Amino acid sequence: MTGKFITFEGGEGCGKSTQIKLLAEHLKQKGYDIITTKEPGGTEVGQEIRKLLVCGDKDKFDDVAEMLLYYADRRIHLTKKIWPAMQKGCIVLSDRYADSTVAYQYYGYNKKIQKDKLDEMYKIVAGDFKPDLTIILDIDVKKGLARSFAKAKTMEVKELRFEGREIEFHENLRRGFLEIAKENPERYVVLNADKTIDELHQEVVKTVEDKLGL
Amino acid sequence: MTGKFITFEGGEGCGKSTQIKLLAEHLKQKGYDIITTKEPGGTEVGQEIRKLLVCGDKDKFDDVAEMLLYYADRRIHLTKKIWPAMQKGCIVLSDRYADSTVAYQYYGYNKKIQKDKLDEMYKIVAGDFKPDLTIILDIDVKKGLARSFAKAKTMEVKELRFEGREIEFHENLRRGFLEIAKENPERYVVLNADKTIDELHQEVVKTVEDKLGL
Repeated sequence: MTGKFITFEGGEGCGKSTQIKLLAEHLKQKGYDIITTKEPGGTEVGQEIRKLLVCGDKDKFDDVAEMLLYYADRRIHLTKKIWPAMQKGCIVLSDRYADSTVAYQYYGYNKKIQKDKLDEMYKIVAGDFKPDLTIILDIDVKKGLARSFAKAKTMEVKELRFEGREIEFHENLRRGFLEIAKENPERYVVLNADKTIDELHQEVVKTVEDKLGL
Repeated sequence: MTGKFITFEGGEGCGKSTQIKLLAEHLKQKGYDIITTKEPGGTEVGQEIRKLLVCGDKDKFDDVAEMLLYYADRRIHLTKKIWPAMQKGCIVLSDRYADSTVAYQYYGYNKKIQKDKLDEMYKIVAGDFKPDLTIILDIDVKKGLARSFAKAKTMEVKELRFEGREIEFHENLRRGFLEIAKENPERYVVLNADKTIDELHQEVVKTVEDKLGL
């Protein structure tokens, strides 16, 4: 595949969607074909799965069912959108991907689901495919949640199933992303997201330039 | 768990739902607590997943995504409905369960997905839990599909995503159910479903009596 796949990860309210929008504009101006997408819900069917995952009561299904729904969404995302776009040479920017599943399902839930189960599931849906670069936007949990709740007030459908969990869950999540990044410093870059939108954007642009030469 | 779990399996139009209804009435008259349910869609969230699975274009997602959605539905079904009912001593009758996934995903799609992947997935969602009895209603493919299309005419939502597949798929499916049954004759009973509703009901009643003493 000739395209590139860049994923943005981080806890609630870390600013991923804003930064993806700005990076997409920047890369388009440089002449690249860009597709922005997200997980869950990067496809039409995925939107239906996303609704199940992010709306409603946090106990409507357990962590195992949740994991399976995420991987179903991911499989559809890869086969119907990410891979076809990359085959045409596009740069695909995704708001969350597989690392979010590991962070939420493994670290967030205090390692109730074994890590090797998640790795097995990943192999079933994606084989050996990996993002070319993953940018983790790191922010203090309380600051992030405050941003996320403020944003939800303006949304038609309240996507707060995860925000409703206790602070400890989000602290685990944050630690999880940082541990994931440490295991593979080649592919992961952690940026401190507690700065202005434009300052952070400049760092994202520099990261993409340094790592992928874009 | 003090209850029992009886599953009905078979291709499209084999008469499972009718036979379950009749068996439920029969067992209720004998004083048992009965719950009837189905897969996919035995729970409220499962209904949403069912819509994704059985409605719309057959190529809207691939066989891997489909498998993951079935197992997500199954996990919710087990944890929110089947296990709690059995713990209260109920007899649960289900229109399809795990053998349908093996028949459709493994045999139906000509073994594209490995059988051990399906077994791994089953272990993730159900551990060592198995039905106490599985009744397979076997019918000629063309006769079954004709019944199924006739029934769909009366349904508000057309659940024909599978009926749209070629005859060969359904032939594989039928062979699949018969092979599954052969591997474990203790738990599986195959009944010829090409007879009147009442004749078949009498055989179902006899099977449940012989195998489980109900």
